[in-house]
Amino acid sequence: MVKVLGKDSTCSIARSLEVLGDAWTLLIVREAILSGATRFQEFRDALGVAPNILSKRLATLIEEGVMERRTYRDDGARARDEYVLSEAGRSLSVVIAALGEWGRLQRPRPDGTSPGFTLEDSGEPARLAFVTADGEVVSPARLVARRTEDSRVPAT
Amino acid sequence: MVKVLGKDSTCSIARSLEVLGDAWTLLIVREAILSGATRFQEFRDALGVAPNILSKRLATLIEEGVMERRTYRDDGARARDEYVLSEAGRSLSVVIAALGEWGRLQRPRPDGTSPGFTLEDSGEPARLAFVTADGEVVSPARLVARRTEDSRVPAT
Repeated sequence: MVKVLGKDSTCSIARSLEVLGDAWTLLIVREAILSGATRFQEFRDALGVAPNILSKRLATLIEEGVMERRTYRDDGARARDEYVLSEAGRSLSVVIAALGEWGRLQRPRPDGTSPGFTLEDSGEPARLAFVTADGEVVSPARLVARRTEDSRVPAT
Repeated sequence: MVKVLGKDSTCSIARSLEVLGDAWTLLIVREAILSGATRFQEFRDALGVAPNILSKRLATLIEEGVMERRTYRDDGARARDEYVLSEAGRSLSVVIAALGEWGRLQRPRPDGTSPGFTLEDSGEPARLAFVTADGEVVSPARLVARRTEDSRVPAT
């Protein structure tokens, strides 16, 4: 863990934020998910982030198992590291989708971009939504949110 | 905006993180959504956050339209401020759900807690998922993510 936030580390959100509660960290994950970036220079060019900050955030993401370090070698060049999302990292696509949707609706701009998700086989678009066990899509406005013990959360 | 992150503010995720890219900010929103906290002392007790940090984060949330300041007065006491989620703030339940789900699965602990969502009328549980336009629930592993112009995102 990089930092401990006040109390209450039993909460799954706090546990996520101990890894991800930093804007650069989530933007690095965004580039990996949406642009397929894997190389230091790709993240640096896309984000305009200072190299020392990028190095630290990539090291944290590796330490936390969100990314994995691999080695690549371009023809005639020396071996270099690249940074590839782990399965845990790829599963952050849901967080990226939720943040993108909020920004699109609450901070609109005419030239805005957002993550778009399509089925790999058919190209059909998919979006994030709350659904009941029967598969009914329900508006967040119809829902009540409560802190729930993990052992009582229905299997997904 | 509190901070500008490198380049690329057209991206909806970057725009969200300019408001929310801080662990305390999201934990304040979490308390408001999951516990119905509205009072300074409630946030302080729940989070164990230093008062000066809490004041700054609440001020930012109000400035950004995520919370609204209201006045309340307990019997015989002086008027005090309370902090209530706006509609934009309540719509962060999707982000809270996504973060909670990631933490529950990727950082499990036996005594863990996570946000649980139920329909206000029936009490039926609901969960966050990717769905197609036909309402088919699809696994994130079947999806390809791409940066998409907001004007081309299907209406939700």
